[in-house]
Amino acid sequence: MTSPETTAVIAGALISMAAARSGAQVSPEQRLRELRLTLPTPVEPFGTYVEAVQTGSLLFLSGMLPTEDGAAKYTGRVGAEVDLASARAAARLAALNVLATARHQLGSLDKITRVVKLTVSVATFGDVRDQPKIADAASDLLQDVFGKEKNPVRCVYGVASLPLGVPVELEVIFEVSP
Amino acid sequence: MTSPETTAVIAGALISMAAARSGAQVSPEQRLRELRLTLPTPVEPFGTYVEAVQTGSLLFLSGMLPTEDGAAKYTGRVGAEVDLASARAAARLAALNVLATARHQLGSLDKITRVVKLTVSVATFGDVRDQPKIADAASDLLQDVFGKEKNPVRCVYGVASLPLGVPVELEVIFEVSP
Amino acid sequence: MTSPETTAVIAGALISMAAARSGAQVSPEQRLRELRLTLPTPVEPFGTYVEAVQTGSLLFLSGMLPTEDGAAKYTGRVGAEVDLASARAAARLAALNVLATARHQLGSLDKITRVVKLTVSVATFGDVRDQPKIADAASDLLQDVFGKEKNPVRCVYGVASLPLGVPVELEVIFEVSP
Repeated sequence: MTSPETTAVIAGALISMAAARSGAQVSPEQRLRELRLTLPTPVEPFGTYVEAVQTGSLLFLSGMLPTEDGAAKYTGRVGAEVDLASARAAARLAALNVLATARHQLGSLDKITRVVKLTVSVATFGDVRDQPKIADAASDLLQDVFGKEKNPVRCVYGVASLPLGVPVELEVIFEVSP
Repeated sequence: MTSPETTAVIAGALISMAAARSGAQVSPEQRLRELRLTLPTPVEPFGTYVEAVQTGSLLFLSGMLPTEDGAAKYTGRVGAEVDLASARAAARLAALNVLATARHQLGSLDKITRVVKLTVSVATFGDVRDQPKIADAASDLLQDVFGKEKNPVRCVYGVASLPLGVPVELEVIFEVSP
Repeated sequence: MTSPETTAVIAGALISMAAARSGAQVSPEQRLRELRLTLPTPVEPFGTYVEAVQTGSLLFLSGMLPTEDGAAKYTGRVGAEVDLASARAAARLAALNVLATARHQLGSLDKITRVVKLTVSVATFGDVRDQPKIADAASDLLQDVFGKEKNPVRCVYGVASLPLGVPVELEVIFEVSP
C-alpha cells in the first residue's frame, strides 16, 4: 500500500515522463489535476491593498503567507520557534496560496507563460544559513505545476519578523499571455 | 471649532462622496488639493543612484524613508525604541516623499494610471506581528490620493535595520501613461 | 610606483573624462577592458531556479552573493562578525557576479540600455545605520561600467540573515535592447 501523496507523486512523474517522451506540452491546470492538488480558497486582503495587479504582461501578487482561511497556520522564526520541516511546510502552503490567487485573478493558470521571479523571505533568529532549503519547498511546487522550463529567478532573505508572526512570505511576478 | 486637519478630512470625504455619486473622476492632483496636502521637497539621493527610473510604462522609485530635508525625522525599531503611532507617522511621511518624488519625476501625479506595487519594510526587534497596521498608514494615504480602484499589491516585511536608523522604508512601482 | 588597481582607476577616470569631452559613448564592454576588470565565472543556481529571466525588455537576475566558484568568500553580519571594509568588498564581489551573470545571459553587456533597479540587502546585527556605504561599493562598480547616466533606483535594507551566511545580497533589474 502506498499513501495517496506517494501515488500522486508517482503518477505525476510517470505522466511528466510520458509527456517528455511524446514532446507534448502538459498545461499547468492539467498538471494540477495529475498531482491531485486541490487549491485553497483565494487569499483576501487584510489591509488597504489588493492581492493581484496586472500591468502589461506582468502579474504582480501581494506577499503570500502560510495562511488558511485568513489565519496563520504556522508561526515562529527559523533558528528559534520553528524547525526546518515546519518552515518547508509553511513555504509549500504559501505557494499553494500563490496558485489559488493567480488562478482566481486569471481564470486559469494556463494563462501563465513564465514564472518570472520568486522572492522568499524567511523569518530567522541568529546564524541561519539554510534559507534556500526552505525556499526550495515553494520552488519545487511551482516547478511541479509549471515545468522546469518556466522556472524563475529567485531571491532569498532572512528577515527579522513577518506579518501575523509567520515564518515565510513569498513574493511572485508572473508573465501572462494577453 | 474643528481643527484644520479635521476640516480637510471632512472636506475630502464630502468631495469623494460627491464624485462617487456623480460618477466623475477626481484626479490625483485635484484630490491632493482637496485634502490640503502639501508635498515635501523631492528627495535627493545620498549615494550612487537616482530617485526614479522609468522603463516602458513602469516607474520605479528608490526606497523612500521618513526624512525631512535629507535628515531622518523618526529613528528606532518597532518592538524597541519606537511605538506603533510613531511608526505609522513615519510610514505616512515616507509616503508623502513617494508622492513628491513621483511628481518631481513626472511633472504631475495625474500621469499615474495605477499604483502597481507597494513594499513596506519595518525595522523590528523581537516578536512583532502588526507590521500591516504600520503599512496601512502609507497605503491609506496612497488610496486617499489615487482612489481605491488604483490600489496596489503589497508586500510587508520586518527587517533588522534600515538606512539612517529609520523605522520604515517604502518601495513603490507605478504604472504611468506615455 | 602605483598598484595595478590604482592604475586602472586612473586610466578609467582619464578615459571617462576624454569620452565626456568628445561626447563619445564608451560601451560597457569597452569600459570593462579599460578598467582591467576580469569577470568571474557566471554563477550557477544551488536550488530550483535559474539565474536570469528576460520578459519583454526587462532582465531579472537572481539574488547575487559574494561567492567564488559557488562558495561564500565572505560570511558574517555587519555590527558583529564583519567590518565595513569587508562588507564593501563583499558587495563589490557580488556586483562582479551580477556582471558575469548578465553577460553570460545576454552575450554582451552592451545590450544593457539601463540599470533599472538595484536592491542591496546587508545582514546586520544591532543598531547599524551605514548600509548605504556598503551599497555604494556595488553601485560604484556598476556606475564605472555602465556610466552615470544609466544609474538605477536603489533600495537598501538591513536583514537578519542571508543564504550561506554571507553579509550582502544584490538584486538587479536591467533594461535590455531587443
